[in-house]
This record gives sequence, C-alpha cells and structure tokens, in this order.
Amino acid sequence: MTSSSLASFEINLDFQRAERVGFDEAILCQGKAAEHLERILEQASERGVSLLLTRLAREQVDVLPPHQRNHLDYEPLSRTAYFGAIAPAIAPSRVALVSAGTSDAFVTREISRTLLYYGQSSTPFLDVGLAGAWRLLERIEEIRTFPVVIVVAGMDAALPTVVGGLVGSPIIAVPTSNGYGVSAGGKTALGSILASCSPGLMATNIDNGYGAACAALRILRLLDRSARALPPP
Amino acid sequence: MTSSSLASFEINLDFQRAERVGFDEAILCQGKAAEHLERILEQASERGVSLLLTRLAREQVDVLPPHQRNHLDYEPLSRTAYFGAIAPAIAPSRVALVSAGTSDAFVTREISRTLLYYGQSSTPFLDVGLAGAWRLLERIEEIRTFPVVIVVAGMDAALPTVVGGLVGSPIIAVPTSNGYGVSAGGKTALGSILASCSPGLMATNIDNGYGAACAALRILRLLDRSARALPPP
Amino acid sequence: MTSSSLASFEINLDFQRAERVGFDEAILCQGKAAEHLERILEQASERGVSLLLTRLAREQVDVLPPHQRNHLDYEPLSRTAYFGAIAPAIAPSRVALVSAGTSDAFVTREISRTLLYYGQSSTPFLDVGLAGAWRLLERIEEIRTFPVVIVVAGMDAALPTVVGGLVGSPIIAVPTSNGYGVSAGGKTALGSILASCSPGLMATNIDNGYGAACAALRILRLLDRSARALPPP
Amino acid sequence: MTSSSLASFEINLDFQRAERVGFDEAILCQGKAAEHLERILEQASERGVSLLLTRLAREQVDVLPPHQRNHLDYEPLSRTAYFGAIAPAIAPSRVALVSAGTSDAFVTREISRTLLYYGQSSTPFLDVGLAGAWRLLERIEEIRTFPVVIVVAGMDAALPTVVGGLVGSPIIAVPTSNGYGVSAGGKTALGSILASCSPGLMATNIDNGYGAACAALRILRLLDRSARALPPP
Amino acid sequence: MTSSSLASFEINLDFQRAERVGFDEAILCQGKAAEHLERILEQASERGVSLLLTRLAREQVDVLPPHQRNHLDYEPLSRTAYFGAIAPAIAPSRVALVSAGTSDAFVTREISRTLLYYGQSSTPFLDVGLAGAWRLLERIEEIRTFPVVIVVAGMDAALPTVVGGLVGSPIIAVPTSNGYGVSAGGKTALGSILASCSPGLMATNIDNGYGAACAALRILRLLDRSARALPPP
Amino acid sequence: MTSSSLASFEINLDFQRAERVGFDEAILCQGKAAEHLERILEQASERGVSLLLTRLAREQVDVLPPHQRNHLDYEPLSRTAYFGAIAPAIAPSRVALVSAGTSDAFVTREISRTLLYYGQSSTPFLDVGLAGAWRLLERIEEIRTFPVVIVVAGMDAALPTVVGGLVGSPIIAVPTSNGYGVSAGGKTALGSILASCSPGLMATNIDNGYGAACAALRILRLLDRSARALPPP
Amino acid sequence: MTSSSLASFEINLDFQRAERVGFDEAILCQGKAAEHLERILEQASERGVSLLLTRLAREQVDVLPPHQRNHLDYEPLSRTAYFGAIAPAIAPSRVALVSAGTSDAFVTREISRTLLYYGQSSTPFLDVGLAGAWRLLERIEEIRTFPVVIVVAGMDAALPTVVGGLVGSPIIAVPTSNGYGVSAGGKTALGSILASCSPGLMATNIDNGYGAACAALRILRLLDRSARALPPP
Amino acid sequence: MTSSSLASFEINLDFQRAERVGFDEAILCQGKAAEHLERILEQASERGVSLLLTRLAREQVDVLPPHQRNHLDYEPLSRTAYFGAIAPAIAPSRVALVSAGTSDAFVTREISRTLLYYGQSSTPFLDVGLAGAWRLLERIEEIRTFPVVIVVAGMDAALPTVVGGLVGSPIIAVPTSNGYGVSAGGKTALGSILASCSPGLMATNIDNGYGAACAALRILRLLDRSARALPPP
Repeated sequence: MTSSSLASFEINLDFQRAERVGFDEAILCQGKAAEHLERILEQASERGVSLLLTRLAREQVDVLPPHQRNHLDYEPLSRTAYFGAIAPAIAPSRVALVSAGTSDAFVTREISRTLLYYGQSSTPFLDVGLAGAWRLLERIEEIRTFPVVIVVAGMDAALPTVVGGLVGSPIIAVPTSNGYGVSAGGKTALGSILASCSPGLMATNIDNGYGAACAALRILRLLDRSARALPPP
Repeated sequence: MTSSSLASFEINLDFQRAERVGFDEAILCQGKAAEHLERILEQASERGVSLLLTRLAREQVDVLPPHQRNHLDYEPLSRTAYFGAIAPAIAPSRVALVSAGTSDAFVTREISRTLLYYGQSSTPFLDVGLAGAWRLLERIEEIRTFPVVIVVAGMDAALPTVVGGLVGSPIIAVPTSNGYGVSAGGKTALGSILASCSPGLMATNIDNGYGAACAALRILRLLDRSARALPPP
Repeated sequence: MTSSSLASFEINLDFQRAERVGFDEAILCQGKAAEHLERILEQASERGVSLLLTRLAREQVDVLPPHQRNHLDYEPLSRTAYFGAIAPAIAPSRVALVSAGTSDAFVTREISRTLLYYGQSSTPFLDVGLAGAWRLLERIEEIRTFPVVIVVAGMDAALPTVVGGLVGSPIIAVPTSNGYGVSAGGKTALGSILASCSPGLMATNIDNGYGAACAALRILRLLDRSARALPPP
Repeated sequence: MTSSSLASFEINLDFQRAERVGFDEAILCQGKAAEHLERILEQASERGVSLLLTRLAREQVDVLPPHQRNHLDYEPLSRTAYFGAIAPAIAPSRVALVSAGTSDAFVTREISRTLLYYGQSSTPFLDVGLAGAWRLLERIEEIRTFPVVIVVAGMDAALPTVVGGLVGSPIIAVPTSNGYGVSAGGKTALGSILASCSPGLMATNIDNGYGAACAALRILRLLDRSARALPPP
Repeated sequence: MTSSSLASFEINLDFQRAERVGFDEAILCQGKAAEHLERILEQASERGVSLLLTRLAREQVDVLPPHQRNHLDYEPLSRTAYFGAIAPAIAPSRVALVSAGTSDAFVTREISRTLLYYGQSSTPFLDVGLAGAWRLLERIEEIRTFPVVIVVAGMDAALPTVVGGLVGSPIIAVPTSNGYGVSAGGKTALGSILASCSPGLMATNIDNGYGAACAALRILRLLDRSARALPPP
Repeated sequence: MTSSSLASFEINLDFQRAERVGFDEAILCQGKAAEHLERILEQASERGVSLLLTRLAREQVDVLPPHQRNHLDYEPLSRTAYFGAIAPAIAPSRVALVSAGTSDAFVTREISRTLLYYGQSSTPFLDVGLAGAWRLLERIEEIRTFPVVIVVAGMDAALPTVVGGLVGSPIIAVPTSNGYGVSAGGKTALGSILASCSPGLMATNIDNGYGAACAALRILRLLDRSARALPPP
Repeated sequence: MTSSSLASFEINLDFQRAERVGFDEAILCQGKAAEHLERILEQASERGVSLLLTRLAREQVDVLPPHQRNHLDYEPLSRTAYFGAIAPAIAPSRVALVSAGTSDAFVTREISRTLLYYGQSSTPFLDVGLAGAWRLLERIEEIRTFPVVIVVAGMDAALPTVVGGLVGSPIIAVPTSNGYGVSAGGKTALGSILASCSPGLMATNIDNGYGAACAALRILRLLDRSARALPPP
Repeated sequence: MTSSSLASFEINLDFQRAERVGFDEAILCQGKAAEHLERILEQASERGVSLLLTRLAREQVDVLPPHQRNHLDYEPLSRTAYFGAIAPAIAPSRVALVSAGTSDAFVTREISRTLLYYGQSSTPFLDVGLAGAWRLLERIEEIRTFPVVIVVAGMDAALPTVVGGLVGSPIIAVPTSNGYGVSAGGKTALGSILASCSPGLMATNIDNGYGAACAALRILRLLDRSARALPPP
C-alpha cells in the first residue's frame, strides 16, 4: 500500500460539529504531514466549506500545492490561516482581550483571528503588565463593561488575579509559554492561574488561544440564545 | 506582643467584593489557625453578614467556641459551612453537574453547596463514567438543555472531552485528586482537561469546586444582566 | 585504536531472539552513529537475514553506502525501513488500529509497518476522535470483531477509555507525543491511559508503535499456538 | 436536601458491563464515603449480584452495617473483598504471576484475588529478584509454558525486561510504589517498564493489580472464544 | 558504642558565625532526634549563649528534660523558640512585612520572631491579598517608606509582583506551601516569584521565613555599617 | 487590520517606572516579533530616552532597520544592547561578581552590563569554582569588603553556600542553566541555592542576570538614600 | 488458600549472594507484611545464619513473636537490626564518614551499623557543614588519609563538592531527604551530587546508607584481594 | 572594556588539582565561548601542560585558530579532544566497560578516551543488552575478573542491576540520555540505577562518562597506593 493511498481513508472531518456545539471543526496543523493537510483542504474544497487552520507552520504552507496555497489567508505570528470565505464580524465587540505585553502577541492574535473567523470581533488591551500597574488601573473601568474578558499572561501570570478581583464578567485566562528558567514552557503561568486567589477564573492549556476563543464563543452564543429564548445549539 | 493581639490586626476581610465582582468573599479555611477563624467569624457577626467557609476540617470546627459553632451549617463530605442565613435558591436550576462517580462527591457537593449559598440550584448527573458510556449517552440530551455545564472528573478525566464534543453550552471542568499511581493528586486529570481535543473547555484547579461554582456564577449573572440590560456588577 | 576498529567488536546482534520470543531483533536507529548502522547492515547481509529498522532518520539513510541504501524500503513518516525481503502478510487482518486523527499517523504507520514486517496485516480506523464521538460509535461494532485492538492517542487520550468500555478484546494503548503545552511530549496522554477508568487497558511507552505491534504479535502467536496446541516459542 | 437523599440518586452501577467487555464492574473503594459504599452494596443485594471491591481500607469495612460486613470476604494485605458468592476457579492455571519479593505482595494478591473472583487461578513465582538472578533462571522454563505472564516489580523494575527477553507469551508488567528516594511512589519502576529494551511489554498503572488481572482476563477470554470459534463478548 | 556516646561527638556548633556573617547560628530542629536537641541545648547552656530554634515541633518540645523545656519561649504557630535571653528590639521598625492573608501566618510569625531574636522589629501588613486589590493600594505609600520589604505569598503569589512594581526598596519574597492542587507544596508560588515581571525581586525557599529574616538582617547591617562607615562584619 | 497597524496600539511602555522603583523599564526581547521591537525603539527615539535591551538574539538585531541597528551597542555573549546614551559609571565598584567559571559568562556579563547601564560598576571574581577551593579562599577577604555580593553558579551551585558562610554582606545568588543531565536547565542549581544551609541567601530566576543586577540596584540605592537621609524613590 | 500458606512459598532468600558479590543478602523491611518478616527470620534461624534488617519500623518490631524479637539488636534512629551474631570489627577504620549535621544521623548510623555488621568500622566527621567551612577545613587532612570517604548530605548537598575537590580517595556521596520546600524528599541534594563540578563523585539513592556501605565494602574487599593477590569473590 | 580584555582575567585554571586529588583539571567545553576556549589553550601552551577537553562540539573546534586546532586530537562521537601529549597506557587493562548497545557509544568512548588520557586502558563489553541475556551471561566470568566495572545503560537501565548481582567488584553505573518518551533525557535510566535492588551500585550524572572514568581512577590509584603502601595523593 502506498502512502498516498493510506492517506485517502485516514481523513474523516467532523463536518457536523456546528450542529452539536455551535461552531465548525478547526484543523490543528501541528504534527500533520503534508499529504494529510493537502487531503484535508481537498475535502473542504469538495464540500464547499471554509476552514480555520491553527498552529500552521510557514514550512507547511510552503509545500502545499499552489491552488491551495493561494486560497489561504495566512498570518505568520499567530500561525493561523483561513481557507475559504469567512463570516463578516458582528459589531460591536463583546470580548476584552487583555495581556501584559507584546511577547504574548502570538497568542492574542490567535484569539482575535479565531473570533473573527467565527464572526466575532474583540477589543485589545495588550500592554498592561503589572510591573507598572497604573496601565491596567487606568483602563479597568472600560474592561469591566465587556461581557467576556480573556486575559493572556506568561511568566508569573499575576495579571489574571488582579483582573479577576476587579471585574465581574466571566474571565478566561490563557497561560503562555513565553519566558525562561522556571517560566519556560508556561507551567508556572498555568499554575498561577489555576491557583489564583481571585474566584472563578477559568483556564485553558498553555498557548491555547484557539481554545480560549472557543470558550468565549460558547458564552456569547449562550447570551444570544438567551436573548432570543432559543434552545441549545 | 501576644498572639491574640497580633490576630486583631491581621484580619481584613474584603466586604466590598460583591460590589466589584458580584459575590461575597468566601473563607478558605485550610491552613488557618483557630485564633484566626474565630476572629473572622466575630467580624462577620459584628457586621451582621453571612459567610461561606470552604475546606473547613472537622477538627477546626470542634475548637470553635460554642456560640460560633452552633451557628454553622457544616457538611463534612464537602467540608463546607454556612455561617448565618443564606439566600433562598432561585428556581429552576440552570447548572448541570456531571461526574463519573461517587468518589468525586467531595467536590460535587462543594459545587452544589457553593451555588446554593449564592442562591443558585443545580441538577446532578453523578454516575455517568465512560467505562459504561451508555450512562452518559442516555442523559446527554437533558444535559444539553442547561445554560452552564460543570463536569467533575478524576483519574483519566475523559468525561469532559466527550461532553465537550456533544454539548454547546459553556463547560467548566474540574479535575479531582482522586486516584492512585499516575493519577494520584489530580495532575493527570488536570492535564487531560487542558489537553482536550474538544474545543473551548475551561479548567479550574484540582478539587476546586468552589472556583467552578464561582465561574458558573459569573456566567449566570452575565445572563441575568443581559436579560435585564444591566451594566456590569 | 581507530574508530572503525572499535566498531568491529561493538556489534553483537541477537540473532537467536526469534527462538526465544517468537520474532527477530529489530534495530532502534535513534542515537546510532553512521559507522555502527553500516556495520549492522553488513552483519545482516553476511548472514543473509532481513532486518526491521525503526526510528531511522532521513539523515541516517543518506549517509549509508549506496549498496546498502538501495536495499532499504524506507517510509519517512514512520521512519521505518525494511532491509532485505519481508514475509508475505497473512490474510485476514486480526488487528484493529484505532486513532483520533492524522497527526498520530507517524505512530500508526510504525505499527502497521512493523506488523507487516512480521507477516501480519491490520485494519485502520484512523480519524475517530471523541470531539465528534459519532465517528467512533458508528464503527464500534466492526472494531469489536477484531481479536486485538490497538488504540493510538495523543493530547488527552480519552479514546482508549471509551474503546475500553465498549470492546472486550485485549486493548493495547499507545500514547503519542503530539500536542503542546501540558500535552507536549505525551506525558498527559500516557497518564490518561494508565489512569483509565476502563479496566484492563495495557500501555506502551510514548510513541512506541513498534512495541505495540510486538505486544500484538505476542497475543496473536499465543492464539496461533493455542489453535494448533503448540508449545511456547 | 439531606446527605442520605443525595446519595440515593448518585449511584448508577454499570450492571451491563459483562455483556460488553466480558466481566462485571468492580468497585474502586478508595475515596468513597461510607454512605456511598453502603448504598452500593444495597443495590447489589437487591439485584442479587456479587461484587468485587478493591482498595477497600479496613476503616471503611469497620463502619459498614453488620448485615453487610458479615457478607464480605475481606483480605487486608490486598485490600480486596468479595461481596456475595464467587465463581469456582477453572483448572488449570493459565497465568504465571512473577515478582521480585514479598514487599510487592499487596499487589500480587490483588491480582490473584481478582483472577479468582472471575474464575481464574494463577501460579506464583514470587521471590525471583535479579539481585540473585539464579532464582529466576532456574524457573524460567516453567514460566515460559504459561499463556499469560504477569510481572510485578518495584524499585528499578529490571525483572520485566529480563523476563521479556526470555519468554514469548504476552507479558503484562505492573510497577509498584514500593521503595524510597527516587523509587518512592513507583514512577521509576513505571518508567523502566515503559522504556524496556525487551519488545512488546504492556504496562498498567502503578500498583494496579486489578487492572493487570483484567488485562489477563481479556487475553484468556480471547483464547476461549477462539478455541470455541465464538464471536466477541 | 551506645547512642548517647555517639551523640557526644556528633555536635559541633558554629559559635563563630556572628564574627563572620554578623549573626549567630540558629538550630533547624526538623529531623533532629531528641538526644541531639538535648545535647545542643546543653552545649549552649555550658557556654552561656542564647539560641534561636526553628521548625521545632510541639512533640520535640514535650520530650525535652524539664530544666531545658522551662527555659524555652516557644510559639507554636511559627514553631520557633528562644532558648535563653534575647536582645532588646531596636526602635523603630525598618522592615515591612506584607502578606495576603492569615493562612500564611505560620511564616510571617517565623519572620517577625527571627527578626526580634536578632534585635529588629517589623511592621505587619498581613491581609492585603490581590483578590481585593484596594487593600494593598490604600497602604502602599506607607509600605514604600520602609528600607526593607518582605512579601510572603502562597497560591499564585501575585502579590510580590504588584508590590515590586510600586516599591523601590529591596524586596525579599517568600513563597509558602499553603494551598491545594497545583499550589500544594508551594512550587507554583515559588515559580511565580522567580518569574515575576517586576525587576529585582529576591526569593527564598518555600516557607523559609527564617531565611528571609536573615536576608533582611544582612541588608540592615549593611545600612548600619554604612551609616557608621564600619568595615564588613 | 494589518499587522503593522495592530502593533501601533499594542505598545505601552512604562516610562514612569524610574519614579516608582528607581530605575527605568528594560525591554525583554525574547519572544518579541520584529515589528514590535522596531516600534518600541521608535517610541524611545521619539521621547529621547535610552533603553536597555536584554535577551536580544543576533537574528533580532539583524532585521532591525539600519537607522536603529546603528544606534545599538550590542554585546553578543550576554545578548544585551544599549540603545542611546548611558550614564557614566560611578567609582568605585560596590558589587563583587563571583562565579565558578567561564561557562557562566553569558550571565555574568548580563549583570555587569546591566549595572553599567544604570551607572554602577562591578568587580569580577570569575573562576573560583569549588573543585579547587583555594581559588575562592585566597580572594575571600577581598570579596568580604563589598557592600553587595552576586554569586553566579550552575551545575551543583555549591559556591553560594560557601560564600554565604564566609561573607556578611547581602548575597544575591543566580543559578544558571549551564550543564547536562540532572543539571540541564538549571533546576538543580536553583534548588541548591534555595536549599542552602547558609542563612539569608536570596535567589533569582535561572540565568536572570538582569534581575540580579536590579536587586543589587535596589540595595545600593537604599544605601545612597540612607547616606543622604532621602525619602524612598 | 490461607494467607499463612501463601507466605510459605513466597520467600526465597538469596543465601548464595556472599559467594557471588562478597556479602550476604540484607532484608529491606519497608513494605513487608508481618507474616513475611516472621517467615524470613524463621528461615534464617533454621539455617543458622545471621541477618541484617534495614528500614525496619518500630511497629514492625513490636508485632514479631517474642522469641524472634528478643534476638534482634534494634537501633531505632537508623531503623536497622541485627538478627543473630555479627562479625567482630576489623581494626583500624578505613572509612571516613562525613556529614553536615545531626539531622542526617538517621543515615550516617545506617552506614556505620551496616559496615559494622560486615566487620568494618568507620570514623565519624559528623558536624562539618559548609555554613561554617572552618569545621571541614580543620579536619580535611585527617579525612584525606582514609582509603574510602562517604559523604552524607541533605538540603543543598554542597559538602561532597568541596570534599571532592580536596580529597583523592574514592568518594561515595549519599543525598538525604532531610529538608523542606525545594529540598523536601532529597531530589535537590541528589541533583547537586550528580551535577558536582568535582570529578569522580559516586552517588547512591536518597537516604540509602545501606547502599553506600555496600559500595564501600566492594572497594575495601578489592583492596584486601589485591593485597593478598586473590581472585574475585 | 572590550570582550577580549574581559577574557584575560576570567580564566583561572586549577593547575594544582593533581596534587590534591591525583589527576589534572579537564575542561568541560559545553557553554564556553570561543574567546574563552582559545585563552584556556593559550594558558596551557604557555605552561607546557596537556589538557583533556570534554563535550567539545565540532563547531567549537572549527573556530579555533589553526595553530591550536592542529594540536588537538579530536574524536567526534565522544566529543573529546587531547591537547598536547598524553601518557602512555599502563598494561594490562583493569577496567571492564560494559554497555547494552552501540547507541551508547558516545558515552563509552568518552570513558575509554578519558581513561587513556590518564594512562589507563579499558576492555569493552559493548553489546550485551538484557533483551538477549545470553550475551551477558556468556561473558560474565570474564567481567568478574576486573578490579573495576563500569556499566553504561540507557532506557530502562536494567543491565547494572543484573551485573551488580553477579559481580563483586566496585561497579560504577552511568545512565545515558538515549531513548524516547519516558526514557528521553535519561531520568528513567538514572532512577533505575539509583533504585537498583543490587547492593552497592554507584551512579554518576546522565551521560557523564568523564565522571565515571574519574571515579574509576580514584579507585585504581587507591589500589596502586595500597600496593606501594603510599600515603594519599
């Protein structure tokens, strides 16, 4: 059996996910072979559906056939791509996106790009680290007005605790792998978020901007269903 | 300086928390000395406020003075207590509380007791482990109707992944420390939840039923404010 | 003493393994120097035996002398190679090979290629992840008919638990290193498998497709001996 | 709501497991409250079924009501109990139970007691540690005749590797938590088994004698079905 | 040789430490046998020197001979004792002692008691956790006036970061073991402090109040020497 | 929205830090995208302020626009750069910089370069490892004369303990990631420093030369304020 | 089968070890059930051989039958016992036993008692910790005269490094579990020893005084064989 | 100050080590900058001494000035080099060098090259892994005749345990980093060695062939001194 024939029956996308949970499957590209990525995009093309691709390395893009590569809207810092058309964003933004500094932009952009793919915009508050707490405090009242707050934090991840003590909205906290020594890899940031003395923070995996955006989508769609008295998705 | 005089200025409860985030401070009793607990309850009595106490060991209850101990509604499995009157529960339940088995009851009861303290009821689905997946599947349609779903899971914590792929509501997943060998202490269960292939799960610390309840409260109050077009707390 | 002379007595292949345990030694190539690999293939050529090579990097293949490289059947995704002739596969397949998605194909192919080397075929069920549980459920009756089931799973590794609760055959579960954050390296997947609430799962090392295939071979040969009332190998 | 009323709907035993995987649910008692254990035994009595209880502490036995306690066959070293009648053991033994020394007897007895509960006997080889390798070598030919071999090993867990290189049967290896320093808790023993240079070892969780027995049962029932040309359970 | 004779030459106190580093040896009692503690106090009595004892368990105190026990000033929460007379405290306090809550009092008292033993007083700011950041902010100007600031923090240890961004004095941060789940044992708090985005924090071991006090003493004595233009100790 | 427009509002430097803590913000360049670094230098140019850049990789320098690159004083071993003019160093040196060997020079230079940026010089004692303890002992009297001692140590990090027992000044100890096996990454060195039997050592994160310098600055400025009877920064 | 009958064939002592490696088997008692210990002593009595028992808890001694208990020479701090007669010690001592302080006496006594059991004496240097390095330096010339040096060290374990740089004899280093925070359990001490910059240190498991004594015995017997030109044991 | 001037006083080789411990300082090159390596070789040239360099990467060799590079005897697999003349090897070999397979040759050659540098030869037994235990058993009598045995083992490291139970000589065991999954990095192999049930094994750091050779040298020189009745080095 050749590799290409193997690939032909190894792909089984979950095109019914939106019916069950309210949004489509996205493709986590890390670890996927070129042959598999190509076949996944083919299946999407054949069905006429769009796809969100996450953790897509530049090297993986470069080996796609041109007719597929040309239909990708690829953003290198977040390593996300849109394949096919995306939904127009709903105004106004209902998500505050808070982070300590630009080193975490690879995650904050994955969040904003994922939200955008699913038709939601977000409002960035991206350089409000606690080494200079005035930067957060002068914007906290604005942050408090958002239905959902996502806090992205690496190193010591003290930011979610302070936000959590000042804001009553649901707070999704994303630890990042940025840092060195004891903070390399993000375990310390993850631990800080989970051990926070502020009540009711909710954590995602390290660097999981996509997951944080999906968590926000679950809450926003609950709000929408509730406003329209709709049944679950 | 005597110990009792030290204690008198070491206590500084956050009685303004409800104004900021929508619910009062609770007292995490683990690690607190008897002298401190007694002084905290005194402050609450003086102000005429109620308190929720979590991780309160039987031994800590036993050394309280009788006039305080008699005003505690203590539940030993969850190690929670109410001090003073609590709010009447709002009908109907808007939280589905899902777990694999009775070994995790020390956490599920902390969740239901915390929700109750803040005026919310919950609906238990407590023995639906995946070793017999039919138990979950025969109740999944009912679970899907709840605005918020909390899944409590120890050992391999496969349950949140399956629920997450079948339910569109916000899902708060609580790993538990129950288990032995590689699952002792709950790190494996926590890892499974954070690494879940189901999108948008939100995790709390291991055994943190109180935190999961607070996360649910943040979402429910957002729903309530939204329904009444209210500003943030 | 020169390096090449050192190599000449550092090699001592276990050509009697098949007599003891029923299948030949395979060569784990990771960490082996070029001089050693070359000498191992020479020994095999001299004895006229075939060899299975695992974890063989493209770079290691490229520096082999042409007369050796040309006799290799190399598959890059699984990093396996056959050196010399292999046994014809026995029909029909008695191994179900189950995995969540294409990102784990580097392991599933190592399994199917190892089984093939030892004369066994396998049947793939390779995109049945639990984020869309219907994909597994619609094929579970077919999976149940196989004498041996191998489940390959990364990230949260919830799949082996669900398969284990629905299938009575021996189940060999292989955690994979695929993932990021808490799932990077495969420790979380390994933990989930070992801590599974489904009884009787058997685990291999992370990414050890070769080992899983050997475990399956041990069971299949037991079946064969039993059918023919043969003594142990 | 009282605790006892809570308990009444928190129990949902998987009485259909035998139909799916070939053996009944067992009760993992670690972490279960007295009220839950009592209710589980009540359900079993009402249905007239037997139960295997594992990781049952003496303290948990002592607080059961006498009419339940008197029907338990409790073995303290393995912390297992039979509730109700058990199946008569099938002769002859098809499982070799190998361990390095008496310190691991708390696990080897859990294995033999679990096998016995499900109607299988086993043959012990229990003091054959490699610090004196002659003890293993003088019995290895006998061990090789068993269809299934279970090796229990703590500390450095070198035993499964040596057995794995000498025996062709399926080998289930159980790391134990016995030891101190780097071997405390069993992580080193587990690592040794998973990293073994002997091909095709299959591991369970640390101290999981119950799981090893279930894995053996899966293989033995496959043999039985195969001998009778039966379909899967 | 008897145990008591062994003990007689196993003790070799460092009575010259004050000359080298400016303060006497203290006795870390954890892990010390009764016979050793008794002999150490004897040596001190014979020389007429005082001793500070740390991590001294109540059980260790209880087995001392009465003539020694009666000369101990023992404080159970901090598990410290003074043996013999102590220096009168120098007024005014030059150390701000900041912590999040009363659960960390076992460490904050070890600090204040150690400072007192060496003739220094301290000023407590002990319930200023960031879940209610106003508590810290309303006292921060006062904290800024102290030459040395010690911050004690468990769980997520966000407090040292915020203090570090607002205060220019040397800051010694002590992680505590208080907490559960990922914060059990203090590794997360330690990691947060070391990974802090506030520049120039200095960390001690988990729960090492004694060490933090000694670090403060080194700084205060440098100040004193500097004020008097003295050479190093 | 384009990437460059995103960047324009993601930068929010803390230009007021010197007022609060006594020294300016430095830029941790690890993890920062080229677009962000460029914008940060632009902001500094516009305001006419200098910047210290740390963990700046050669590759990051190479993609800066020439007009920025040419104003950088870049030192590759420490990966630090000065952007703009720096303060003239105050004579004489008040910091002893002690390390075991040249492998840790990447950290010792980060310390000396950071101190220099903030106007402080330091005195190196850089090859005094304990495998040959005479090297330390012959210089210890000189080291004792410095107000602040920084000890940089990798592998087993025994050096800070010995220095700590011989020197009374404040001691800041920096573990390094240099080493292999159990010392790879610096966790062992960090542990040794935190667990030191010498009292009052203060630790920074692994390889955090910048942080150690800032800690020293906090102490030196305290000395200066004290000498001039100045209020806090 | 009763427990006692089980025990009768679970014991298989390695009475031939002395022939192979030069010293008898010792009994590691941790984890052994009372029934097993009793049977082991019975076997030794029947054969008329002595036994060394290690990690023997007081509770295990107390439940032995009086006729066995009365023949034990039990030392509680080291938790060792001699059962039967022991060899007279050879004069003079050839082992220097160096440790930092009395907290590690539970290990140093296990070493000296094990050596004594096998006929070797040792010379203690037991309170020479590096916080006061003069204590080591004033005795180092004496330590240098011993053929074998054993260094026992907990916490930061800096002592073996300094000894290793000053002494040319074989050095066996034993990390101990004594300590708290990052040094709890002995992983930091073990890491320090393994990562030592002094060349040629040899490590044992944490708290493994018995193993260190055996390592010393291997070297001493090599010396003895060498002196008498004898073949290996 | 320029980098080159910095380097000139950062080097302080320990040329007196041979007097203290019996062999010269070797240079651990990992982590050393080119400027430092060059200066170290210069110092050796100036003094007319030879040097052993370990962990010297090909890239580090390539940037040395030609007059230094040409005097290096570099062996790439072990990454060792001799700079200057080396001592002639003493016949006959007194060290048995045992390993499981060729993947560990990068360590075994570091051992044999280090021994050779210090004038000792060794005898290799390099492909005797336990997956085929006959390979070890057929050579064990020969191995038993060596005064010192070094066992190098990766993955599960079962080999030292079996050798330790069969050989009475001092045994130095070196874990290697070779492997994947749970054995990646060598922690499992290290743990197995330390937890071995064979008494008196002595461990070095992972991959520390240099250290194992130095440990062997310490024992061999003790033998030599003993034979000549010499005092310590």
